[in-house]
Amino acid sequence: MTQPAEQADSRPPRRRPGGRTGRNRALVLDAVRAELAERGYDALTLDAVAARAGVHRATVYRRWRDVGGLLADLLAATGDDDWQPEDTGSLEGDLTALNRENFAALTARPSIAAALLAASFRSEEAARGLHRLWADRYTRCEVIVERAVRRGELPPGTDARRLLVAATAPLYHELMLLRTPPDPGLPDQAARAAALAARAGAFTRPS
Amino acid sequence: MTQPAEQADSRPPRRRPGGRTGRNRALVLDAVRAELAERGYDALTLDAVAARAGVHRATVYRRWRDVGGLLADLLAATGDDDWQPEDTGSLEGDLTALNRENFAALTARPSIAAALLAASFRSEEAARGLHRLWADRYTRCEVIVERAVRRGELPPGTDARRLLVAATAPLYHELMLLRTPPDPGLPDQAARAAALAARAGAFTRPS
Repeated sequence: MTQPAEQADSRPPRRRPGGRTGRNRALVLDAVRAELAERGYDALTLDAVAARAGVHRATVYRRWRDVGGLLADLLAATGDDDWQPEDTGSLEGDLTALNRENFAALTARPSIAAALLAASFRSEEAARGLHRLWADRYTRCEVIVERAVRRGELPPGTDARRLLVAATAPLYHELMLLRTPPDPGLPDQAARAAALAARAGAFTRPS
Repeated sequence: MTQPAEQADSRPPRRRPGGRTGRNRALVLDAVRAELAERGYDALTLDAVAARAGVHRATVYRRWRDVGGLLADLLAATGDDDWQPEDTGSLEGDLTALNRENFAALTARPSIAAALLAASFRSEEAARGLHRLWADRYTRCEVIVERAVRRGELPPGTDARRLLVAATAPLYHELMLLRTPPDPGLPDQAARAAALAARAGAFTRPS
């Protein structure tokens, strides 16, 4: 759930895709992030995004059509990076690093991650985009479990998805659903609990 | 997160609270549940609720004021029951029973629990009401951990809240945030993982 450091491209227009079109996209998506984080879903309009991005309204309407189109493209761009989970050398270390990263994204002020999650309850296109992004992120994280199995930390046949969800879900539950004040001890504790359960065979698929 | 079996009171009006006022409240809250579950937050209006409940519009406007007021009262009524977690005789059994109940509530069609959760991203009053309801439910569930400590299943000083969140969060994460299709094995597996981690000391507070 990390946000890419997508900056407006300041190079001169080129002929290949990535010239003016790519630059406009970067400007528009930056503006969507900023509007969403600062003002929320209800205030998000194509006009406000166009004005903030300094891109022609007509271009924004033609290319993104509506708020759902903007959110879907923002989520697609967010997933289009080379993010990989950190390799710390241990299962608990890897899960802790992942949880700290998610916790930081969810408690940032403003938090794009939290705003996108909230938007997924408003827009079907945002919900589908977030579902795809998340499926991809959890798939990328499976390497954490593969490494732990190779090191002999975990039994083969450990269900990576369930282990990763067990490790990460408490943060989202507390911060996004229960809305409890952020507990800085939670990322490490939830990672440790999932690692302990995993080593005890809690996520081993019945063979 | 169980829903109370609140039925419209069919007894004749009485003088004490619980007469016409109580009956109207039951009718109105039943109508809110039905409208929310069948048509969602966007279609929820005081007029539709009044019509469905068969209660005067003026009464509904005077007493509940707006949609936020209806949701806040529905959540207050939902929490005003004598729900207690099941006592199965073991930590894993108690957590499994709790997870199965939550899973059934979240996957019911229509699901009031899921509709209220979605509404909490729309209405501040719903968010506050849900926060209170949930805080109360987790407090009531602490007895699960107390019993396990008394039985010698868990070390004293186990953090009940963190254990309960670890056991229950994966269901909400998968069903409400990731929106994966319901996996009927998840309630038992998540309960077992949390119980294993707890027995391994994952939720013991540093002394």
